[in-house]
Amino acid sequence: MSTGVRRRMGVEERRQQLIGVALELFSRRSPDEVSIDEIASAAGISRPLVYHYFPGKLSLYEAALKRAAEDLAGRFAEPAEGPLGARLLRVMARFFDFVDEHGPGFSALMRGGPAAGSSTADALIDSVRQAAYEQIITHLGTPEPPARLELVVRSWISLAETTALIWLDGRRIPREELQAQLVHDFAALMAVSAAYDEETGALLRRVLKEEPGEGPFGDLIARLVTFAS
Amino acid sequence: MSTGVRRRMGVEERRQQLIGVALELFSRRSPDEVSIDEIASAAGISRPLVYHYFPGKLSLYEAALKRAAEDLAGRFAEPAEGPLGARLLRVMARFFDFVDEHGPGFSALMRGGPAAGSSTADALIDSVRQAAYEQIITHLGTPEPPARLELVVRSWISLAETTALIWLDGRRIPREELQAQLVHDFAALMAVSAAYDEETGALLRRVLKEEPGEGPFGDLIARLVTFAS
Repeated sequence: MSTGVRRRMGVEERRQQLIGVALELFSRRSPDEVSIDEIASAAGISRPLVYHYFPGKLSLYEAALKRAAEDLAGRFAEPAEGPLGARLLRVMARFFDFVDEHGPGFSALMRGGPAAGSSTADALIDSVRQAAYEQIITHLGTPEPPARLELVVRSWISLAETTALIWLDGRRIPREELQAQLVHDFAALMAVSAAYDEETGALLRRVLKEEPGEGPFGDLIARLVTFAS
Repeated sequence: MSTGVRRRMGVEERRQQLIGVALELFSRRSPDEVSIDEIASAAGISRPLVYHYFPGKLSLYEAALKRAAEDLAGRFAEPAEGPLGARLLRVMARFFDFVDEHGPGFSALMRGGPAAGSSTADALIDSVRQAAYEQIITHLGTPEPPARLELVVRSWISLAETTALIWLDGRRIPREELQAQLVHDFAALMAVSAAYDEETGALLRRVLKEEPGEGPFGDLIARLVTFAS
């Protein structure tokens, strides 16, 4: 406060502050290593007061996870304008921003960390995956995708998660490269699936027709062809 | 027993029998739904006797998981003979055999089921992934793979897991098709990565040169080319 006076917070305001403080700590170190004492200290309140708002560390962790999940799902939103490859590339950049900001917490969660066995955490992870899936299906313009296209999209989402986890483990490959590679992977997996499914094939042809030659899909195809010779 | 006489089992023999009975039950229904009473009844012994060999359901579950993990890792072993695409296709067939045999248990485990939070279960899952990774690296003949090739192999393994999980959820796509698709996916992901890594590119060219035109890699390339026109 600019007045230097410590204002008394309302219940919901205090809860939101604690969630923010906890999310910050859970993002920077493995959540297992973050204590309630630390959260209390970072929030400038006493340990018992933390328990007044959250019955235990798990409930605070789940609340922080909920905020992170909403944040991530929000980053998938992308205007339906311009070539698909470029749209997906922008979403990948925001996804890696998120992974970068929440590195240790993201790793711990996805590797079955502190919330393992928490049905709330599992449901939140599923809701983010579902949000990603629905965004992609909307951009593809296929509200009722065939089973093989659904498989491509859902399995590619898991590929993106794994790629991000491997990146976090040592950051040996520049993230910009991985963002572009995942866009290429998406087109490549669609091309493979198109062999088994006419609808996916027709969709891929339509998408590729609208891609500029220098866009992320255009240069993939040019490259793949070199392996055919 | 052919004599009809119930022989008294030794401790280790009884443990192994219980593990086998439990694995059978954990494979057919979600392990959460399987009770110790049921396991005791299926093994023909009393509930207290089960507890004599295993302190609780989790320890019996972990022992069953260990046997399943060894079984699965064993199925990755493939002679280093003939074209790589055909080798990988045979391994995929055995992987889907395993997934088919252990469907509900496999789903529950991979979706963070009954053993969630069990570091033993996490370590077993990691050990199977590592076995798969090492097999593939051996077949590729690259004992010290570049970071980008390691990423391709590890992320493809997660793609195979997700594909199997989606298959189990309704079995809407024939598994033979998915087995072949995963082999294609592997080559496609390698081709994408080759753009960023000369070593992966050289390796892919070498692999493709040895592939027969009618093999799983040969027809992929032919198909991808059709999207380039």
